[in-house]
Amino acid sequence: MNNKIADKQEIVVGVDIGGTNTALGIMDSNNKILFEDSFFTLPENGVEDFFFRLANIIKKEYINLSQSYILAGIGLAAPSANYLNGTIESPANLKWGNVNLIEMMKKYFDLPVAILNDANAAALGEHAFGAARYMKNFIVLTLGTGLGSGIFIDGHLLHGENGLAGELGHTIIDPEGRQCTCGRKGCLETYVSAIGIKRSVFHFLCNSDEKGELRNISYNELTSKKISELARSHDPIAIKAFNYTGEIFGKALANVVTYFNPEAIILFGGLADSDDLLSDPTKFYFEKYLLNIYKDKVKILKSELQNGKAAVLGACFFVHDIITKSTISV
Amino acid sequence: MNNKIADKQEIVVGVDIGGTNTALGIMDSNNKILFEDSFFTLPENGVEDFFFRLANIIKKEYINLSQSYILAGIGLAAPSANYLNGTIESPANLKWGNVNLIEMMKKYFDLPVAILNDANAAALGEHAFGAARYMKNFIVLTLGTGLGSGIFIDGHLLHGENGLAGELGHTIIDPEGRQCTCGRKGCLETYVSAIGIKRSVFHFLCNSDEKGELRNISYNELTSKKISELARSHDPIAIKAFNYTGEIFGKALANVVTYFNPEAIILFGGLADSDDLLSDPTKFYFEKYLLNIYKDKVKILKSELQNGKAAVLGACFFVHDIITKSTISV
Repeated sequence: MNNKIADKQEIVVGVDIGGTNTALGIMDSNNKILFEDSFFTLPENGVEDFFFRLANIIKKEYINLSQSYILAGIGLAAPSANYLNGTIESPANLKWGNVNLIEMMKKYFDLPVAILNDANAAALGEHAFGAARYMKNFIVLTLGTGLGSGIFIDGHLLHGENGLAGELGHTIIDPEGRQCTCGRKGCLETYVSAIGIKRSVFHFLCNSDEKGELRNISYNELTSKKISELARSHDPIAIKAFNYTGEIFGKALANVVTYFNPEAIILFGGLADSDDLLSDPTKFYFEKYLLNIYKDKVKILKSELQNGKAAVLGACFFVHDIITKSTISV
Repeated sequence: MNNKIADKQEIVVGVDIGGTNTALGIMDSNNKILFEDSFFTLPENGVEDFFFRLANIIKKEYINLSQSYILAGIGLAAPSANYLNGTIESPANLKWGNVNLIEMMKKYFDLPVAILNDANAAALGEHAFGAARYMKNFIVLTLGTGLGSGIFIDGHLLHGENGLAGELGHTIIDPEGRQCTCGRKGCLETYVSAIGIKRSVFHFLCNSDEKGELRNISYNELTSKKISELARSHDPIAIKAFNYTGEIFGKALANVVTYFNPEAIILFGGLADSDDLLSDPTKFYFEKYLLNIYKDKVKILKSELQNGKAAVLGACFFVHDIITKSTISV
């Protein structure tokens, strides 16, 4: 019996908890994904309900795998997650308040459970499996509803005193600018995010007099996907909104380079996938505002991992790293 | 003879090369300073002349100490110094172009020589001996002719891909703002530095109509020390210039916290010493623009080391650390 257990290969679970969807994967010790799934987070049903459903999916799949494998740990990626104390700190799109997710998960599994910020998980995913392989200095920016960031410098994920370093979305670019959910004005993510570009469309609907389909769509109906489609079909306001977003983003990234001196910046998430609508103006203004010594030297890349997968892989990598205490420092 | 050498205690030299003055110190292995000196850098005489004079001072003093001590290494702190390749990269106030300072020093001493950015040296000095003792996350800002910074996060000095991370003075706060020596516009140090506050005085001499002694002083005659003296004697334009500098500095530091999540920010250099003329408005605007979770939690401190001493101590500590390969990672 003991031999049988000893023969079993260790596997880990990685979970990426988002405001709308939750993705999970099971990875073996050769970094092979054995199982992938996603389901609706339904945060409005509460955090207890969420973990009940998550645990059931993991248990069900683990029963299928348990002949050959043994579950060694679970890594959770979530917005506003603090790896130091295991909590999420009132993320706007979950509304669960301050909850200790490690304790929630341990109710179902008596195993090592680790938690990290979703953007940090994406950075680790890119480092282990994606565009940042072999890089010691890079930054991952996740362009979703908000703007997340994971900073990996000198071979380490940056954490800071409270595990909250690198919240680039909440750097203020204009103290008199757009109202942010954080209570302040002019945070970068009020301009550079799915909601940011939507707000920019309404800026141009107000300030320009160009016609087009966007004048028939309400704020609540409009999506960043729709803005991409219209920009591709040459809608002038949609194009202006992308260029404006790219200008602000490029300027901000030039400063980011001055702070961190990365080899590359990796863009991730829906807006980053919108062909070159965003990346072209971003790169133009990035180069324009870069400090001379960095010009043409810092790459802006797209994620090499499928949508949503980087954070799941990063969460697997993170917990696997903690279990095995490998040399890669997180 | 061998025994005699073995009995000798190891000492290191730390040198802080500034645009006007160069300070140096000799430290024993108990972190005791045995000798301190400073001399005019006279950069206009060239880098060869400088190292000839520096080497002579070190040699002369070492002859006095060599009965009991053996010189184990030299640490050099200089503006725009790159610890990875040993060079300084055209710092504006030295005008020596790109020079390898390690090679220059090794012409005179066949010993381990290490080089680091002057602000990074100040950060290490504060960490080893000053206000940042026992801190794992802090930032040192040196307010001199320019604005330097040393970033110490997660127990490490931040270096980045080319050893240039943390050049906070060259983050752009207004792309249409003041012309900077780097060729771009609106860098933070064009506002927050000895020259920055002088430029702000001239902004208010232009835009306000208040009277005072400042209207009798030319740009080239004016010093930041004079602005401090006048502010202390209630000159309205001098006070406005300090408040304006503090507002810009406080806003910038609030963003710095969002990037790095430090426990404290430590101010260093002439302007920082000007009583609370700068730190009062800086702290006010810092708190005003901080992300909620950080309010009242991040300290702004003054250097605990005498003027100019932090970088000398940091340079000693740096080379001593390299020689002994201690656990503190730089």
